[in-house]
Amino acid sequence: MIILGLDPGLAATGWGIIHSEGNRLRHIAHGTVKTHASEPLADRLLTLYAGLETVIAAHHCVEAAIEEVFVNVNPQSTLKLGQARGVVMLAAARAGLPVAEYATRLIKKAIVGTGAADKAQVHAMVERLLPGTKVTGADAADALAVAISHAHLRAHLALTARIKATA
Amino acid sequence: MIILGLDPGLAATGWGIIHSEGNRLRHIAHGTVKTHASEPLADRLLTLYAGLETVIAAHHCVEAAIEEVFVNVNPQSTLKLGQARGVVMLAAARAGLPVAEYATRLIKKAIVGTGAADKAQVHAMVERLLPGTKVTGADAADALAVAISHAHLRAHLALTARIKATA
Repeated sequence: MIILGLDPGLAATGWGIIHSEGNRLRHIAHGTVKTHASEPLADRLLTLYAGLETVIAAHHCVEAAIEEVFVNVNPQSTLKLGQARGVVMLAAARAGLPVAEYATRLIKKAIVGTGAADKAQVHAMVERLLPGTKVTGADAADALAVAISHAHLRAHLALTARIKATA
Repeated sequence: MIILGLDPGLAATGWGIIHSEGNRLRHIAHGTVKTHASEPLADRLLTLYAGLETVIAAHHCVEAAIEEVFVNVNPQSTLKLGQARGVVMLAAARAGLPVAEYATRLIKKAIVGTGAADKAQVHAMVERLLPGTKVTGADAADALAVAISHAHLRAHLALTARIKATA
């Protein structure tokens, strides 16, 4: 099962890909698609879409996971983030990947053990959970955290379903 | 010159297509792509994208125009609108159409003559500017208004450029 994690943003969208088999996780790749503030919005959205399209195809991703968004107090920032997030979700969906959404607190709890963890703690735990991996970039670290959370939580959900089915 | 106007929204995205030649405008088609609130977000974004992709290809659109967004006081609404707007812009951009953005007040001024016009006034003027056209749906009327504004304003901008060039 190859999982794509996504941390969307208009200036920078982080992505992280892991292989998940039972309880075993393996890092495959991670990176950031960046866009320039000087470019027209339509071009920036094209860059995001094309970058993710390439990544998804290259790594044969099967499922995607994305953070539910922290709604910024600044409405203009929320709008920008929303535009990027829509395009990022579309790239995964058009490639045929189901897209799961997880609340930020749930991801932090799954990775660090507490929903109040800070970004540095998440980054450090991501590197511990994917041994031998040095993660470049905060957005990519967040994206890997989403992917790992999905690997844990989807197994749990599947287990819950099995228990229910045999109960 | 075939112009596509877009009024984006997650539940309903209005689109309107006109033919513009000099000062003459002609209605070609209009409609609304709707999505269901009960569906996952990724599926709703897919529906929006696929609907617009079909419309753009069927009518050989050459340029697109979209409203600059009124940022809602409700951040969740702004986020939803942003996600839809990103996908709508992407559909036009991936089809090779340049996408122009116009402020709502500028569109109202171009159509009705005052930036304070209400939706009913805009709708009525759109039908007057495209004789013989009965427009179905408020979102489609807004989309036609954006397309008409673009037809007027792009000609004006081109004229300004010519005057500058010969001055």
